[in-house]
Amino acid sequence: MISNKRKINIAVIGAGRIGKLHSQHLATSIVGAELTAMADVDLSAAQESAARLNVPKAVADYRELLQAPDIEAVAICSPTDTHAQIIQEAAIAGKHIFCEKPIAHDLGKVDQALEAVEKAGVNLMIGFNRRFDPSFRKLREMIAAGNIGTPHILRITSRDPAPPPIEYLANSGGIFLDMTIHDFDMASYLMANEVHDVFVAGGAMIDPKIGELGDLDTVVITLRFANGSIGMIDNSRKAIYGYDQRVEVFGSKGMVASENVAIDSHVFSNQEGIHSALPLNFFLDRYSTSYKSEMQEFIDSIQNSNPPPVTGKDGRIAIEMALAAKKSYQENRPVQLSEVDGV
Amino acid sequence: MISNKRKINIAVIGAGRIGKLHSQHLATSIVGAELTAMADVDLSAAQESAARLNVPKAVADYRELLQAPDIEAVAICSPTDTHAQIIQEAAIAGKHIFCEKPIAHDLGKVDQALEAVEKAGVNLMIGFNRRFDPSFRKLREMIAAGNIGTPHILRITSRDPAPPPIEYLANSGGIFLDMTIHDFDMASYLMANEVHDVFVAGGAMIDPKIGELGDLDTVVITLRFANGSIGMIDNSRKAIYGYDQRVEVFGSKGMVASENVAIDSHVFSNQEGIHSALPLNFFLDRYSTSYKSEMQEFIDSIQNSNPPPVTGKDGRIAIEMALAAKKSYQENRPVQLSEVDGV
Amino acid sequence: MISNKRKINIAVIGAGRIGKLHSQHLATSIVGAELTAMADVDLSAAQESAARLNVPKAVADYRELLQAPDIEAVAICSPTDTHAQIIQEAAIAGKHIFCEKPIAHDLGKVDQALEAVEKAGVNLMIGFNRRFDPSFRKLREMIAAGNIGTPHILRITSRDPAPPPIEYLANSGGIFLDMTIHDFDMASYLMANEVHDVFVAGGAMIDPKIGELGDLDTVVITLRFANGSIGMIDNSRKAIYGYDQRVEVFGSKGMVASENVAIDSHVFSNQEGIHSALPLNFFLDRYSTSYKSEMQEFIDSIQNSNPPPVTGKDGRIAIEMALAAKKSYQENRPVQLSEVDGV
Amino acid sequence: MISNKRKINIAVIGAGRIGKLHSQHLATSIVGAELTAMADVDLSAAQESAARLNVPKAVADYRELLQAPDIEAVAICSPTDTHAQIIQEAAIAGKHIFCEKPIAHDLGKVDQALEAVEKAGVNLMIGFNRRFDPSFRKLREMIAAGNIGTPHILRITSRDPAPPPIEYLANSGGIFLDMTIHDFDMASYLMANEVHDVFVAGGAMIDPKIGELGDLDTVVITLRFANGSIGMIDNSRKAIYGYDQRVEVFGSKGMVASENVAIDSHVFSNQEGIHSALPLNFFLDRYSTSYKSEMQEFIDSIQNSNPPPVTGKDGRIAIEMALAAKKSYQENRPVQLSEVDGV
Repeated sequence: MISNKRKINIAVIGAGRIGKLHSQHLATSIVGAELTAMADVDLSAAQESAARLNVPKAVADYRELLQAPDIEAVAICSPTDTHAQIIQEAAIAGKHIFCEKPIAHDLGKVDQALEAVEKAGVNLMIGFNRRFDPSFRKLREMIAAGNIGTPHILRITSRDPAPPPIEYLANSGGIFLDMTIHDFDMASYLMANEVHDVFVAGGAMIDPKIGELGDLDTVVITLRFANGSIGMIDNSRKAIYGYDQRVEVFGSKGMVASENVAIDSHVFSNQEGIHSALPLNFFLDRYSTSYKSEMQEFIDSIQNSNPPPVTGKDGRIAIEMALAAKKSYQENRPVQLSEVDGV
Repeated sequence: MISNKRKINIAVIGAGRIGKLHSQHLATSIVGAELTAMADVDLSAAQESAARLNVPKAVADYRELLQAPDIEAVAICSPTDTHAQIIQEAAIAGKHIFCEKPIAHDLGKVDQALEAVEKAGVNLMIGFNRRFDPSFRKLREMIAAGNIGTPHILRITSRDPAPPPIEYLANSGGIFLDMTIHDFDMASYLMANEVHDVFVAGGAMIDPKIGELGDLDTVVITLRFANGSIGMIDNSRKAIYGYDQRVEVFGSKGMVASENVAIDSHVFSNQEGIHSALPLNFFLDRYSTSYKSEMQEFIDSIQNSNPPPVTGKDGRIAIEMALAAKKSYQENRPVQLSEVDGV
Repeated sequence: MISNKRKINIAVIGAGRIGKLHSQHLATSIVGAELTAMADVDLSAAQESAARLNVPKAVADYRELLQAPDIEAVAICSPTDTHAQIIQEAAIAGKHIFCEKPIAHDLGKVDQALEAVEKAGVNLMIGFNRRFDPSFRKLREMIAAGNIGTPHILRITSRDPAPPPIEYLANSGGIFLDMTIHDFDMASYLMANEVHDVFVAGGAMIDPKIGELGDLDTVVITLRFANGSIGMIDNSRKAIYGYDQRVEVFGSKGMVASENVAIDSHVFSNQEGIHSALPLNFFLDRYSTSYKSEMQEFIDSIQNSNPPPVTGKDGRIAIEMALAAKKSYQENRPVQLSEVDGV
Repeated sequence: MISNKRKINIAVIGAGRIGKLHSQHLATSIVGAELTAMADVDLSAAQESAARLNVPKAVADYRELLQAPDIEAVAICSPTDTHAQIIQEAAIAGKHIFCEKPIAHDLGKVDQALEAVEKAGVNLMIGFNRRFDPSFRKLREMIAAGNIGTPHILRITSRDPAPPPIEYLANSGGIFLDMTIHDFDMASYLMANEVHDVFVAGGAMIDPKIGELGDLDTVVITLRFANGSIGMIDNSRKAIYGYDQRVEVFGSKGMVASENVAIDSHVFSNQEGIHSALPLNFFLDRYSTSYKSEMQEFIDSIQNSNPPPVTGKDGRIAIEMALAAKKSYQENRPVQLSEVDGV
């Protein structure tokens, strides 16, 4: 397919795991994008990625890229605590912005960033990639089309194959802002309704060190939506059988669900039973399609002067839910989003 | 298989739907049982069942049967509000007792019944038939054998194909005592641990008349067990695709689940998709095996002078959970079982 | 359900495994049937079954029953080499007849039996129980309703969990008459078309003793139907994972298939994979429903003066296919049914 | 992953659908490969691909590339009737060769090509990409590891979503050389045994025009292997529900199967049934991984001076089977491979 649209010059800020992924997609498969620069505080990391992908420019300081007039957009893949600041600066510089989740750990910073974006009139898209997974999207479409009637019960199971290193967890903002945030966004995406309150049960069942950080590794969350429907999310930092990503929405006229995706499609039958392959074990494998699609849609939204498919407001709502969840756990009661400071 | 054990003469009290089912099993397939009498306040109902099954005796007043010295056991299948009273009288008369769930709607009556049983030294088994379903039993065995390590998260989905008549619901004691009680018992059965507290989110989403009764038709329940593990139960009175009965237990070393049982095993593929059969739509079909097995085990326990596989205490615990759930909904907070009056 | 129709008095001839099964169904669950007598050359076997099921009469010589004017129908469950003779005598005695498959091992005897039935004007039904399995019946209905358009390819996989004893096999008539005969009938039932020719590849792969008998334990059969569609059957006498019973019909507008039925519906996930239960391992378990339904329909056909749902001609066709298969294997070429002696 | 091995300069001959696919993989994701030239008799096609992928050279005559000393390998993606000739010339020029299947439609040409390869001592790999599919490879590994004991029965179902244009079919060599050839190779790959003879049943059921060409669109093939095991292949040119690619191998100790891969993992339940997504509909989607893996292994084999994972002999055997199948259909009898001219 050949596009007559102009190419969007884009730079990637952050050459870590997720930055590398987006860079590779931008360099090889995103139609309409031209990856023209990489930035990383570790200059050699930026240079290495740039070399591998034939990207002409690599810098240590992203501000250099924000000043480049030929760069039209940036993808922010740096550590979370820098997101809000970079969004603000990029907006002031007039760049369209793709930013990995979450925007920040507190709503004050989020709002500063969103205000700058608003003022500059640029596009800001938050990287909730799961919205672009073909199965979840199918669910969303079927729900929106009325296939299941009125949604009554939402169930999200989201379990990681193994916890991240303790050092990472120490600065992660806690399980709700780091992990559940994807599920909070999925809940909003699928139900197309506001969450009214949140109730949390949880514990540190996998690793006592996680508990010592004041964090949780296993949580079960009840969401009550404004329209009366109810959601459940369960998270575990360690599912020994792999990355468990299931969603189900039950309504008055039916149910839609998304099952796990297996590593392969073999089935083995012997005296002991019927055996099949585990789910894809790594989030980059499970969501390989969705990462590409989200970036494609970001580029498309700029080319077509459309609003991005996931907005800064969407990013903020997921953070509100995470903060309400935190408060619910601390106070052992259902907490309304309106009770969260800054909401 | 031929048994040399003596036959247990048993009478069935109540000739409604469930009474008929147990009568048929006792008359045709339960080894070691002799169904010798039927009772029903509607004498003609008792007579009809007796005639169909070649049962020699049919009476209107169950007390007549309690006085018969050749009757060793009774199966109580009358309306719930008569259970506790009949248990008490049957115990005093020295009969072994099988009683449908729940024992009663309040713990005072339960305790009177259990005390009479204790004093008489007879067997009392509560009809939590799902414990005898081959799949749920398999789950219990695998959990007990350590196959999933330490259980972390329990999920029970239990949805009826359609709500009972409003007249029935008006005297049902509410969804927790009438419907969820099976799931509360399943939670105890699988997790082999006490529930510490209960949190409920719910609504009347299916039929506003159910709401007018002060009852709920859709509930999502969080259970926190004494050992820290967490359970979720979701109930709906109306799943348009049939009787949805799924259970999943996730632990440190694996997960066990029980899927729905389909009406048949056909699969149809056409341009629109891959289509397969709905779950068995009626509880008597879905649990046909478990109803037989529970009665067989009741008879076996008498023959072998063993305690019954489901005790009066098990019946009480499920009621405690139901009452805590009710209180949680009313007060919109997690409620400990110890807060329930009478616990 | 109460029927106003008269009860059909029926006797079972043969008190072996399958005779016991039909007797139990007739005595406890077939509406409209009255099991009034059992016959077996081993009188004590007949007496034991009769006692267990409260059947008033047990005899050694089935001829005694054929003379009893109050017996309207017989179910022939004796060894295969007696089927044709008993059918003939029962027909002459004016009894309706249910007979286990196959009618005989040669077409001459089959034709004598069928002529007697024809002359007497009684019902003869052959026990191809699989036609009454809910899933296979669903397939048949969907095909007949045009859901898959014109059928192109039929696939039947039919594998036993273990071979019968060598002594049984020595008199079984060979795999085609003993085992594949069910699949030949299934092919006719589903495709509703005549088979034109048969090609066989096979071997004795499981047990050399089976080969020494001149028999096969593993066969792959190609069927060409008169209308041009093609069928495949594969049989093994030993599937280590259990009783494998799958069927698939592919057509111009879609495909229908029937999958195996599992022992239970548990699923276990651990580091090694996803594990589920084996297929039901025993034909009496797998086809428990179909055995009841076929007998019910036999009784219904008598009550309603309808032709039976499986006719003597159906029984003959399956034997023709078996004999053609045998010839194909011997001559290593496709063999037309019209080439079989007696066709 | 960084490789210290030298890059292999490779040219792609043929810029049609499959040539484009291999070019894209070589240009963007095959480690150790440098795509340096494209050839196509339609020069503009070669130029367009070259431009899109930043390939420095595009020519109309592949011979130009065979003379270039810096090109070490070629991938032949031109029409089938040119394969053998180009293989021969490339071998003489000392290039390593990847060639799409089949090598040729007759064994004489195949042998000329293979002799040239042999003489030149270059690597020739035939593009049986399905061997590199993760699921089929898993089956092969499990069989080779003895997981299913001795293989008894192989079943391959391979059905296309729709027939190619009649013009294509007219020069395709017939269904066996064009379509079944993949399944013949899969049979050899999985069973690791020689085929002794082949029997075919088939017809033109989908499109009478296919029959007018003397070709078939629906075939069922029986394979007898030298070791006595038996295989079945069924092909259809049109499965309305999509690309149906299933394999199953049954043995003395178990069974391995590979199921279809669905477009997405959604499941929808409503009053009519349980509905899920169709199989991936297009071979480039279904086998996207395998096309990459085969090319990677081709490059790896050159770098490591290993024999290629699929040899010219493998390519020849599949053609022998196709020719035996053709003869079997014509003569309506099982045909041994040794009966094929040139074998």
